[in-house]
Amino acid sequence: MINVSIAGGTGYTAGELLRILLRHPQVNIESVISTTSVGMPVAEMHRDLLGETDLVFTGTFSKPDVIFLCLGHGLSRAFLNDNNIPTSCKIIDLGNDFRNDPLFNERNFMFGLCEQNREQIRTANNVANPGCFATTIMLALLPLASSNSLKDEIHVHAITGSTGAGKKPGETTHFSYRDNNISVYKPFTHQHLEEIVNILKGAGNNDLPQINFVPMRGDFTRGIFASVYTKWNGKMSESAVIDFYEEYYQSSPFVFVSKQPISLKEVVNTNKGLLHIEFHNGYIHITSIIDNLVKGASGQAVQNMNLMFGLDETTGLKLKGTAF
Amino acid sequence: MINVSIAGGTGYTAGELLRILLRHPQVNIESVISTTSVGMPVAEMHRDLLGETDLVFTGTFSKPDVIFLCLGHGLSRAFLNDNNIPTSCKIIDLGNDFRNDPLFNERNFMFGLCEQNREQIRTANNVANPGCFATTIMLALLPLASSNSLKDEIHVHAITGSTGAGKKPGETTHFSYRDNNISVYKPFTHQHLEEIVNILKGAGNNDLPQINFVPMRGDFTRGIFASVYTKWNGKMSESAVIDFYEEYYQSSPFVFVSKQPISLKEVVNTNKGLLHIEFHNGYIHITSIIDNLVKGASGQAVQNMNLMFGLDETTGLKLKGTAF
Amino acid sequence: MINVSIAGGTGYTAGELLRILLRHPQVNIESVISTTSVGMPVAEMHRDLLGETDLVFTGTFSKPDVIFLCLGHGLSRAFLNDNNIPTSCKIIDLGNDFRNDPLFNERNFMFGLCEQNREQIRTANNVANPGCFATTIMLALLPLASSNSLKDEIHVHAITGSTGAGKKPGETTHFSYRDNNISVYKPFTHQHLEEIVNILKGAGNNDLPQINFVPMRGDFTRGIFASVYTKWNGKMSESAVIDFYEEYYQSSPFVFVSKQPISLKEVVNTNKGLLHIEFHNGYIHITSIIDNLVKGASGQAVQNMNLMFGLDETTGLKLKGTAF
Amino acid sequence: MINVSIAGGTGYTAGELLRILLRHPQVNIESVISTTSVGMPVAEMHRDLLGETDLVFTGTFSKPDVIFLCLGHGLSRAFLNDNNIPTSCKIIDLGNDFRNDPLFNERNFMFGLCEQNREQIRTANNVANPGCFATTIMLALLPLASSNSLKDEIHVHAITGSTGAGKKPGETTHFSYRDNNISVYKPFTHQHLEEIVNILKGAGNNDLPQINFVPMRGDFTRGIFASVYTKWNGKMSESAVIDFYEEYYQSSPFVFVSKQPISLKEVVNTNKGLLHIEFHNGYIHITSIIDNLVKGASGQAVQNMNLMFGLDETTGLKLKGTAF
Repeated sequence: MINVSIAGGTGYTAGELLRILLRHPQVNIESVISTTSVGMPVAEMHRDLLGETDLVFTGTFSKPDVIFLCLGHGLSRAFLNDNNIPTSCKIIDLGNDFRNDPLFNERNFMFGLCEQNREQIRTANNVANPGCFATTIMLALLPLASSNSLKDEIHVHAITGSTGAGKKPGETTHFSYRDNNISVYKPFTHQHLEEIVNILKGAGNNDLPQINFVPMRGDFTRGIFASVYTKWNGKMSESAVIDFYEEYYQSSPFVFVSKQPISLKEVVNTNKGLLHIEFHNGYIHITSIIDNLVKGASGQAVQNMNLMFGLDETTGLKLKGTAF
Repeated sequence: MINVSIAGGTGYTAGELLRILLRHPQVNIESVISTTSVGMPVAEMHRDLLGETDLVFTGTFSKPDVIFLCLGHGLSRAFLNDNNIPTSCKIIDLGNDFRNDPLFNERNFMFGLCEQNREQIRTANNVANPGCFATTIMLALLPLASSNSLKDEIHVHAITGSTGAGKKPGETTHFSYRDNNISVYKPFTHQHLEEIVNILKGAGNNDLPQINFVPMRGDFTRGIFASVYTKWNGKMSESAVIDFYEEYYQSSPFVFVSKQPISLKEVVNTNKGLLHIEFHNGYIHITSIIDNLVKGASGQAVQNMNLMFGLDETTGLKLKGTAF
Repeated sequence: MINVSIAGGTGYTAGELLRILLRHPQVNIESVISTTSVGMPVAEMHRDLLGETDLVFTGTFSKPDVIFLCLGHGLSRAFLNDNNIPTSCKIIDLGNDFRNDPLFNERNFMFGLCEQNREQIRTANNVANPGCFATTIMLALLPLASSNSLKDEIHVHAITGSTGAGKKPGETTHFSYRDNNISVYKPFTHQHLEEIVNILKGAGNNDLPQINFVPMRGDFTRGIFASVYTKWNGKMSESAVIDFYEEYYQSSPFVFVSKQPISLKEVVNTNKGLLHIEFHNGYIHITSIIDNLVKGASGQAVQNMNLMFGLDETTGLKLKGTAF
Repeated sequence: MINVSIAGGTGYTAGELLRILLRHPQVNIESVISTTSVGMPVAEMHRDLLGETDLVFTGTFSKPDVIFLCLGHGLSRAFLNDNNIPTSCKIIDLGNDFRNDPLFNERNFMFGLCEQNREQIRTANNVANPGCFATTIMLALLPLASSNSLKDEIHVHAITGSTGAGKKPGETTHFSYRDNNISVYKPFTHQHLEEIVNILKGAGNNDLPQINFVPMRGDFTRGIFASVYTKWNGKMSESAVIDFYEEYYQSSPFVFVSKQPISLKEVVNTNKGLLHIEFHNGYIHITSIIDNLVKGASGQAVQNMNLMFGLDETTGLKLKGTAF
């Protein structure tokens, strides 16, 4: 059994991690850390866990084999400075602290996109879990980047659910505002762009074209829907590209290419990524969907843990989707 | 023209009042008061008003003929203490300060349920605008109360939209929580119960039975749907009661009895109240719907203003519903 | 391994059954029957199953150990007449054909509410799976009925998600109608009332008072929220009743009593039932929530299968909830 | 008073037209035509109109000054063939029959985008009302097209509400499917593209670049949100372009440029179009929002009627928005 500690235990990604790990056959959760709720039963905060756990929030960890950092962006570095985590304990960071800046003291954070870095993750001691937007867009583009096929500007619109904005309530997550509403935020300038560019280059597309990225706020809770296109000057036909994608993801147990157009709820509450590819007017158009809290955060973190501890990649992650 | 001032100008009911009054043919809005946003254009706060007004929030009023208090429950009394409002200026309070306690200095607040107190409101200088739950439930029961027909316990479930909880974001108005969710709050103990009891007694049902009231939070933004029933020992048949209701509301231009079952969106964005009545198993069952921000707040406030200033009751209030 | 056949394979409950059974460690799905889609891959109809199964709809079954009937209300009897199902094959009917009328030829259908009939189900060959409304309301009342404590009229409002109305689109499941809307249907006369009355009497409350049941259509997809109250003349205090409920459900692995008020999404995508109990004004008020497609249909059907085949009741049913 | 007839009276756009025209001070609705519901009160079909009209569906028109065709795409031509409409009666077609093919017998349909063709509409006898997608996108691009500034490919993602798909229920408008879901349909090939291209060319951008248009289905009922960008090689700065847009729309009473980012609900239930413009990375990015049923259909149709009959363009169209 893997002894697990979760730091930042009251937030959305920690809750989702608990939902997954409480059903994971190889995991013992030793501690759920919170600075604000020490002594409170975990199921009083994450109310859907009633009847599933007697865990209580603690102020610190004991002797975990791995610690998940669910702290909010920018807080992981401070946590590692303040807490002496033995080098024998692996770290999986769900924040963005080490995605673009992988060094911390003697630790080196591997970028945890399993579909790209599967083998390196198996031997990594520390993993920077990818962001949810980046994961969605990367799954759409990785095969092309790996074959150095991204030559022309890339156009991306991606719509995210409200859970991507975290637990703290605010104007744009107020139900009265968000319900039946749509808006754009940080067009062309979203902070995930750097992460996306780094991965695509790392995948083999060194001379990367400009990416035009328009993020949108959707009026749903879970999921990201990305619509991605770029001019296609390659030699492969539509069906050849689809075959190429299927081959590329053959060893990835959670990513599938759909022959039919896809809709977001086909992946909600699962660790899957679904892709659909069409050629039009000289463009290749790819739609890509994930659940931002699962494949875009806590599910992918567990997938990384499975790899790091030599387990089957899908252990504890064959989750029943909601579909509706 | 009626010179209007609005106190508490940044909240939901003030925004709704502005939406209505900016189209009212007999109104000039002289000031929109805010303690926090003086100098900000009103349309920067209430963004849907872009292109409709150049008003700017001010710190105080000038010489209004009427002032609407949109201050949040419990703050109207303080506002009246702090501001010397001339007795020539009428007051319409959208808070709950004077609903159950109508006296303030020499001012006497008339309870502003037009369908009950139409004639008294015409001559009132100060009106306490009814609460949204109370309005919905009162419209369902007023005809029975007026004929002293409420003899047995009354059972009420009423589901409210998120705008009823106001602008300040919180846990139960977070989109991630509220979307696709339902919950009960303050069952049997909601603060509007006192208001409801007072009105029903005032309407002629002195010996009022117990009211069992279960309020619920719905996952929609606007509207209240109330399901009300009580044992029926009266002599009238179902169709006779329906006729009686129609007669009771004949002079009320916004309340209608529907022969068909009703659904909430039939009244959204209007000042209407719709009722549907059925007899079953010895019970009379009444469903009642309003838009909480219009008939349940700002629309009813304007209806009161119209009466107080001798205008046709419907002036500026024949609003196009959304239906969808 | 249990060989399973599913009749009526294209509908909502069949899809949900597939989502559960494809992850069930003791099940082999031998056939998914459809009269309209023979030859179509199952994952083309239930699109979220892409990558999870290669099953194809067939016209009939082979040699199943158990057949699930997901045929729509009233069609199970016809199916059994038309298909010669060997007596060695168990039947679990998700329709309402045998709930109130358990006899069919030599087969006798046990009512499959596990929390009430656990021991009889273990030895049953045929089970009539309870309805979703009935399950929600029964979980709220079973402990009281079992102690013959229901003496006074029972008041129930229950709000259901759209999936309860099935796959066939219609006026009241049109998104343009349903979104942000609420309505009542079949108040006091819903067809599930008979089922509820039968169970409560069977549980020991022979002299049952009238049940006033107002079903409502909610603007969410999954779940039923029931608010139930009745006068409390019993001797137990609120906390004693809560203890009694906890004791009653101690051997039921999916039913829990929450000390805190509950909201619907705490059970969505799980097989759990959550209850919350409060005393007010001489009434006992119970809120009860389930996911109508899981505990209210396909999950409970699998729970019944587990019991019928001697498996642990929770096998394959410890599902990760969505929470959001 | 203008005598109005509405053909196709039971659909969504007819309902919306009724909501508007019943409040229009210069209109008398003489007939609401339906082939399927003759004799039924209009308020039984469009239930939110209860208390607002006693109109009954008829089989034909009498002597209207103008007839609105709300028949569904492709059915207007047949209606005009089957019904002898006197040339003295003006026609406003809400279908797409004459948008790209304006000739019908001796009648010539003017394209009814008021912001482009205001003067020609004033003297037109027949108007083809623009499509909802086209209206949204045109409002974003008209100023650039009018100055022949569209030189590089145009990228458009536009998300539509469910009412755009009409009243007939189907798979993608089923609440269980649509709620909390997002999907793409007809990417790069939507039938509105031709309409858009025609207008932009007609506005002065003869040598039009390719338009890449990805339509999406949103999980809301009303509105279209378009995100549009193209490379900017012009000389004007961001603020100069904003000034240019404001000047272009100065005489258009319903179109406004917002300095702040916009969200869809700022226009819901109004006839307004809101635009927001930003420059990024060499691109001009424009977001554009309308209510598809109002400015995208029935509101714009009334705006056209006002122009055709010499009324102020805004008569009956200063509608209160819902905001929430």
